Amino acid sequence: MVTTDKLLFGAAYYPEYMPYERMDTDFSLMRDAGMNVIRIGESTWSTWEPEDGAFDFSLLVRTIEKASDYGLQVIIGTPTYAPPSWLCDKCPDILAVTKDGRCLYGHRQLSDITSPDYLRYSERIIRKMMEVCREHDNIIGYQLDNETRSGDGMSETNQARFVARMKGKYNGDISSFNHEFGLAYWSNSISSWDCFPDLRGTVNGSLRAAYKAYLRDLVTEFLAWQAKIVREYTRPGQFITHNFDFSWKEYSFGIQPLVNQKDAAAALDVAGCDIYHLSQNDSDGAMIAFGGSVARSLKKENYYVLETQAQGRTGWTPFPGQLRLDAYSHLSSGADMLEYWGWHSIHNSFESYWKGILSHDLLPNDTYKELSDWHHEFAGAESHLTGLKKICNAAILADNRSLTGIDEFPLDDSDTASPDYNTILRSFHDASYRRNIETDIVYSDDDWAGYGMLIVPALYSADKTVIKRLRDYVQNGGHLVMSFRSLMSDSELKIFSEPLPCGLTDVFGMTYDRFTVPDDSCFITLSGEKERCISYIELLRPDDCDVIASYDEPAWNRYACITTKCFGKGRATYIGANLEPEALENVLEQCAAASGIRPSHYRFPIITKTGVNRLGRIITYVFNYSSESREYTVSCECSSLINGNVTVRQGDIIKIEPWNLVILEQNGLNNPKDG
Amino acid sequence: MVTTDKLLFGAAYYPEYMPYERMDTDFSLMRDAGMNVIRIGESTWSTWEPEDGAFDFSLLVRTIEKASDYGLQVIIGTPTYAPPSWLCDKCPDILAVTKDGRCLYGHRQLSDITSPDYLRYSERIIRKMMEVCREHDNIIGYQLDNETRSGDGMSETNQARFVARMKGKYNGDISSFNHEFGLAYWSNSISSWDCFPDLRGTVNGSLRAAYKAYLRDLVTEFLAWQAKIVREYTRPGQFITHNFDFSWKEYSFGIQPLVNQKDAAAALDVAGCDIYHLSQNDSDGAMIAFGGSVARSLKKENYYVLETQAQGRTGWTPFPGQLRLDAYSHLSSGADMLEYWGWHSIHNSFESYWKGILSHDLLPNDTYKELSDWHHEFAGAESHLTGLKKICNAAILADNRSLTGIDEFPLDDSDTASPDYNTILRSFHDASYRRNIETDIVYSDDDWAGYGMLIVPALYSADKTVIKRLRDYVQNGGHLVMSFRSLMSDSELKIFSEPLPCGLTDVFGMTYDRFTVPDDSCFITLSGEKERCISYIELLRPDDCDVIASYDEPAWNRYACITTKCFGKGRATYIGANLEPEALENVLEQCAAASGIRPSHYRFPIITKTGVNRLGRIITYVFNYSSESREYTVSCECSSLINGNVTVRQGDIIKIEPWNLVILEQNGLNNPKDG
Amino acid sequence: MVTTDKLLFGAAYYPEYMPYERMDTDFSLMRDAGMNVIRIGESTWSTWEPEDGAFDFSLLVRTIEKASDYGLQVIIGTPTYAPPSWLCDKCPDILAVTKDGRCLYGHRQLSDITSPDYLRYSERIIRKMMEVCREHDNIIGYQLDNETRSGDGMSETNQARFVARMKGKYNGDISSFNHEFGLAYWSNSISSWDCFPDLRGTVNGSLRAAYKAYLRDLVTEFLAWQAKIVREYTRPGQFITHNFDFSWKEYSFGIQPLVNQKDAAAALDVAGCDIYHLSQNDSDGAMIAFGGSVARSLKKENYYVLETQAQGRTGWTPFPGQLRLDAYSHLSSGADMLEYWGWHSIHNSFESYWKGILSHDLLPNDTYKELSDWHHEFAGAESHLTGLKKICNAAILADNRSLTGIDEFPLDDSDTASPDYNTILRSFHDASYRRNIETDIVYSDDDWAGYGMLIVPALYSADKTVIKRLRDYVQNGGHLVMSFRSLMSDSELKIFSEPLPCGLTDVFGMTYDRFTVPDDSCFITLSGEKERCISYIELLRPDDCDVIASYDEPAWNRYACITTKCFGKGRATYIGANLEPEALENVLEQCAAASGIRPSHYRFPIITKTGVNRLGRIITYVFNYSSESREYTVSCECSSLINGNVTVRQGDIIKIEPWNLVILEQNGLNNPKDG
Repeated sequence: MVTTDKLLFGAAYYPEYMPYERMDTDFSLMRDAGMNVIRIGESTWSTWEPEDGAFDFSLLVRTIEKASDYGLQVIIGTPTYAPPSWLCDKCPDILAVTKDGRCLYGHRQLSDITSPDYLRYSERIIRKMMEVCREHDNIIGYQLDNETRSGDGMSETNQARFVARMKGKYNGDISSFNHEFGLAYWSNSISSWDCFPDLRGTVNGSLRAAYKAYLRDLVTEFLAWQAKIVREYTRPGQFITHNFDFSWKEYSFGIQPLVNQKDAAAALDVAGCDIYHLSQNDSDGAMIAFGGSVARSLKKENYYVLETQAQGRTGWTPFPGQLRLDAYSHLSSGADMLEYWGWHSIHNSFESYWKGILSHDLLPNDTYKELSDWHHEFAGAESHLTGLKKICNAAILADNRSLTGIDEFPLDDSDTASPDYNTILRSFHDASYRRNIETDIVYSDDDWAGYGMLIVPALYSADKTVIKRLRDYVQNGGHLVMSFRSLMSDSELKIFSEPLPCGLTDVFGMTYDRFTVPDDSCFITLSGEKERCISYIELLRPDDCDVIASYDEPAWNRYACITTKCFGKGRATYIGANLEPEALENVLEQCAAASGIRPSHYRFPIITKTGVNRLGRIITYVFNYSSESREYTVSCECSSLINGNVTVRQGDIIKIEPWNLVILEQNGLNNPKDG
Repeated sequence: MVTTDKLLFGAAYYPEYMPYERMDTDFSLMRDAGMNVIRIGESTWSTWEPEDGAFDFSLLVRTIEKASDYGLQVIIGTPTYAPPSWLCDKCPDILAVTKDGRCLYGHRQLSDITSPDYLRYSERIIRKMMEVCREHDNIIGYQLDNETRSGDGMSETNQARFVARMKGKYNGDISSFNHEFGLAYWSNSISSWDCFPDLRGTVNGSLRAAYKAYLRDLVTEFLAWQAKIVREYTRPGQFITHNFDFSWKEYSFGIQPLVNQKDAAAALDVAGCDIYHLSQNDSDGAMIAFGGSVARSLKKENYYVLETQAQGRTGWTPFPGQLRLDAYSHLSSGADMLEYWGWHSIHNSFESYWKGILSHDLLPNDTYKELSDWHHEFAGAESHLTGLKKICNAAILADNRSLTGIDEFPLDDSDTASPDYNTILRSFHDASYRRNIETDIVYSDDDWAGYGMLIVPALYSADKTVIKRLRDYVQNGGHLVMSFRSLMSDSELKIFSEPLPCGLTDVFGMTYDRFTVPDDSCFITLSGEKERCISYIELLRPDDCDVIASYDEPAWNRYACITTKCFGKGRATYIGANLEPEALENVLEQCAAASGIRPSHYRFPIITKTGVNRLGRIITYVFNYSSESREYTVSCECSSLINGNVTVRQGDIIKIEPWNLVILEQNGLNNPKDG
Repeated sequence: MVTTDKLLFGAAYYPEYMPYERMDTDFSLMRDAGMNVIRIGESTWSTWEPEDGAFDFSLLVRTIEKASDYGLQVIIGTPTYAPPSWLCDKCPDILAVTKDGRCLYGHRQLSDITSPDYLRYSERIIRKMMEVCREHDNIIGYQLDNETRSGDGMSETNQARFVARMKGKYNGDISSFNHEFGLAYWSNSISSWDCFPDLRGTVNGSLRAAYKAYLRDLVTEFLAWQAKIVREYTRPGQFITHNFDFSWKEYSFGIQPLVNQKDAAAALDVAGCDIYHLSQNDSDGAMIAFGGSVARSLKKENYYVLETQAQGRTGWTPFPGQLRLDAYSHLSSGADMLEYWGWHSIHNSFESYWKGILSHDLLPNDTYKELSDWHHEFAGAESHLTGLKKICNAAILADNRSLTGIDEFPLDDSDTASPDYNTILRSFHDASYRRNIETDIVYSDDDWAGYGMLIVPALYSADKTVIKRLRDYVQNGGHLVMSFRSLMSDSELKIFSEPLPCGLTDVFGMTYDRFTVPDDSCFITLSGEKERCISYIELLRPDDCDVIASYDEPAWNRYACITTKCFGKGRATYIGANLEPEALENVLEQCAAASGIRPSHYRFPIITKTGVNRLGRIITYVFNYSSESREYTVSCECSSLINGNVTVRQGDIIKIEPWNLVILEQNGLNNPKDG
């Protein structure tokens, strides 16, 4: 990874979209606000190649050179996620075939990324751009494509590739394939690899999941292919990144179901992402923390925020002070770049009210002023704040196969509002977050040994190797905190025929075979309080474990809801019901304490986030995500970095204004894990 | 119908779906639980014929023979509702064409059941199976297909058949066809039978209804065709049945709109059905009673429950005791077979969390134990409880043409939540049920003479013959209780141009020509209570009748809502508004009393259901469908069958625990109609 | 326009739909009720031409002649909006291609009105009908087609026509076209006019809006083409009209987005429309007033109500008295014809429960009697009430480009419930209406000079000429009351890069560049009351204006919500937030007062509507749209026209019964503008 003492601070810039020429004005405003980087080039293939083979990079070159004049560094994006209309007209197979048929031209991310035509034309435009760009010194890196998708491709070609993959995986044995996928059901067995029915019609959840896994791997393959091309042209010191996005609920929400980001990141030098979140009274920093944890997990290193909102969507217009608070929130998670989307608001087409820093009048406005002011404040402490090293004692395991599993087999298949995987994942993340337990995101192939607590929400799909590794984690001293709906099926979503949680019944000291959807009157008693179970409960039969909570409902009161057990050198806790947020926070706080993680005195809206800076000192951010002022008591001597660098001492009470923060640098070196 | 002293008790069994071989274990567990029957074979054509013309019945034979070893009888299902993929690949016309185009392979019940290819291949697999099965003594019967559908077929061939049907019905006279269907409207008249526009576009409700009637008749035809083939192979004593299902609202709800079940049942020996219902605190026995009444109506005899839930869907996991309560509920409606779906939960594909008796771990669990315990309890009184003869004094008229009529012409065409036919039908059924008025379901071609009260909800469509028969029913002493939205159109949904209710204005002594959707403030006064009218009211103009209730709303207070009149030897009551459940219960209880049906002292959640057993004695089931214990006062000397067979006497008070029951056998012979 | 002393009073009549012959009965009933006109002929092409080239106008002629016998005048509708099935079978291209593909035959208004086949056959049937009709004296006019639509056509031919239009508009300069439409975005630039991607896929809001404008112009063109043909046959004194409808929310609601009605009306002699509205307790007269204002605007003259509900849809059945109240409501807006849809209820097909005057039993009923009684009452004052000349002092500007703009760029693009243009337009209209400020509807090319107040809601799209004219309006003394979301984009929806409100920041003395969606706690203080802002607020930065209200929310309290400023000889008020109805009423009442419009002492449910009759006297209708009686104090000596013509004097208090009214004719001539 490319590191620097300076925060990379800037915005996506689209001179192609401007209603009139004003590059000098823009770059001058950027420079004045302390910005040092722009991202250009992606999205605008039709500008660089308006007709087949007719290239025109004059605007690109002018932008790069002008940026240099104003001391701005440049990230070049390859433009492949939005091919021009002439190309789709010439080669219609570039547009993906989905279950609704061939896509119509217009939207982005509709390409069939396996199409030979698409790949051939993409390679040509990339090489042409790289030939132009390699000459320019102020280009610091390249972004491959943007939020890459497989186009949800279900063309015959795609299906043929998938069938070949399955045939390879099952060594050509159609009958073991039929058996693993349970295709006898409803007479769906396949008699030969050559006679595979159109997958768009299948009802088989395993088959659909395998196809989704195939589509995810296409993205990995595609980015590796682009990286290889781009790398032929890069200089030492230039990075290759990609802009990974998150699952979407009108804002960034959970892990991206369409991409295995960790796999895809293998081809990159540094992970990049875009994070969009609610604002105003819903501003809570949780998505920034979650997104940061995901992004850090991809290369086990700090990351770039390649896009985040300035004004954003109409409902997101930030309250005064919130842009500053968000900027520090990103830094406190380990972001080494902060790039807004975009510099200006767009006057036509589609994302016109996804507003950038400047509004449509293109004048310096309150948004611009707040960012500019923020950067001037930040610059005074920059060497203490950049390159923050995060060290978390707890981790959360995320898994795309399990996500698919819960899509295919929802907790309550009669209710479309049944919580999906990301909702469950976020509920566990956010409960930790709100109790100031900082977490990494990890995957099933990561090494979890360093974590005192491993939270495993809804790991619906797991092969026997993973189950064995979870057992070993506990055996060797870890605290495994597993939720309902875990270890129910193998990696092809075939449900286990062993007792649940599969392979770990002795570790947890309990089993169960039944679960249900409770009505509104299903409670447990937790720390003396009645807490409601929502949407899903498992009827745990304790064997050799401590029962933390059982169901109050007379029909189920012989079953446990939450159990814990010491096993080997560690501990295994199981949470068998979906709980209301506060109850889950309570449980996770208890789990953290039992894992040797020091409890925080603070809860949301006071959020503390820590790390070690380049000077080896502990930095503690203390955020107040609320519209009321709050107090914070200092626990040891520190410098308060952005308030005149004053020294504060143990016991000092700091008043934190609404939507404000303090940043404390501990005087003396330390390891945050100790405290 | 095949009768036996023993209850047929068992489950659907799918060795094809098992993750590993365990037939001995399964059959041994079944036998231990008192089970004596399994249903096999349906759903798995691709197992019996994995490739075109390659047949392999080894698993089928092994299952039948092994069942025999364990004393289990077998029902064989023909597998035609789920053709294999190779067949649909070879003959694409097997897949139905709907308004969305040709179906994709994958789901069941998507065949065009008029396709010659489909019929040819179906016949071959059926004959091949029958040749194998005819040899086995423990096969007691055959199920044709499963929940047969027409595939909603709208192919050109289907349309051509439909046009020919219409041409025949109207003797080739296109102009009388245009007139009856009102096709002049919006210029839709058809100039010749050869130039019939694609019916998928029509806006004409009569035409759509006629097409739906055609599709229903295809099912009748198809089952008769299968029955004829199967009967070539059956031995005396073997039955032919079919698994009829109900309309579906995430659970069984009302009559099946896609099949005229009584017509289709003509080809069968015994009616079978599947009943799925809510559970836990929503368990009320109402769907079991309704489904039983429908199933009894098909052959005017007892019926088989070919499928009902063990654990069922995630939200249905029964409270302890509810499986037992449900089992008795089925028996008290006249079920002679009780077969669960299925024996085990399925590890792949689609209905994996529609759980059987065993969970995915395939171990004997609480569900298994409750059923096993139930059967041992039941066995002690088996000869008193099987073959219960139901005798109802009241009937409810159900009608698929009227159902279609209300689909095409909803009560409120501006509100998609406007109650549909089944909602209305169920509201009348359930109101009776909750006041312990047991009802048969009858059709317009049945003989209603034996019933003291005939409830006719929303008989939107009726030809003049039916209207005449309703008049005669009253004339001859019956009490006709008719609801709003009745007798409005003929059998082609042409709205009558006579005064409403068409043909019976003198019988009811009132008429009306206006109706509306009230807002929330529309009340009537009934037995001194204000009762709300919901979603639909008719403005009745009483002429020569008693007004039971008028509207309180000043704008409508000159119109009646409920009227009654003695006519001939009988009585005619008209309910002109959709009422809240309790108000409707009240009205129907009054109607029953006026019909000479003895009022019950009990209301839901205490439900009493009666019949005469093989010994000629009256059996009274007294259910408590609630989580609180209730008391029941005995009205005459009885034996309490499943509580040690103790004798109870008039005036004894029996406490019935939550989700529990007593079964009383009256000492001495009697006719429940008298009491 | 054809004028007459007599109100045209009648119904649409469809003998084609009748279940049996009864024309004498019908016409006799009509005559008895005072009716003098029927509309026939539209909708029933297949009756006039049952097969290609086989014409049969016998029923048409018989109806016209029979009408003459009963003194009924006739309006003939051309039948083109519902072509017969044989024609669509013969020429499939008659059916429009939409984004879902070629339409299926069945529904009306699905023709591609650019199809040469459609036009050729349409012309032939029109000419054939005209040849028949020209002979008949009692035909007073012709209606062209009915509620004409473009069929939402997106065929290749349509696209080619659209591209040619764009090429013409941009003088063939593809690059200025790309620039104006911002097609560089997402690489959507078009390299040549010959290679225009299928518009059905575009994401570009400007392009979609331009296509919608093109579709609207097709309707204008089509009606002009029909008018030309029909006019070849008309006699002096016969009128040509069209039945314009409104946007639809299960009832008429706002302006029609699919037609530029004022443009289309250029080909007509008199504007016609259909108005359907809520009833019973939701009856408020607002849609009748709004629809009347729109219809008056088309020819700047009185208009015909060609359709309005008798019984209407099931939920609309009017309370006793409401048909009378509605009839007067239409007259008080300037309607010169009142024609119900339809005479009878229809016994088949689709609109069967959109009931006419007669119910399906075809007997004179309460609806018939109320209309008949009404007409007899009305006839006594007919010469005082017909031909009412409306004179409004305030106007509301409506604009279809802005409507499209807000469809493409909703106020909150993350919320499908975000208010659309018509909701905003109606909120301003209704707020005025409820405070008894009568308004005209005007368009951007109208002359607004005569109005004291011009209300401009959400004029999202405006070219520089319109902006200049708005400035001039204020400069010259008008009071411009503009709402949020105005003057944001040009006529191609390209968002302005000037400060907002574009071109008028000096006129308003404020600007803004940010806006957002508030949560439920965003209030302003208005006349001392806290008033909630709903769904959208703009953060106004006052410069040189009076602030009427600012936001209470601490985050936004430095921004204004409502401002006003004297500019030139006039005043400019800006309302920057969507307000609850009562708050908006309050603001508009203040604005009216500041515009010199005399405030009314009455508010809804007392509604006063005025005009000048043919005698030059001021007529004031005073309606009570409520179920409680209200009092009204007379302001000057008048005759109370329909209550025995009694004289009432200043200060007299008149009690108005529920759903009732008084009509006062001022004694002496006057100009309502003075008072």
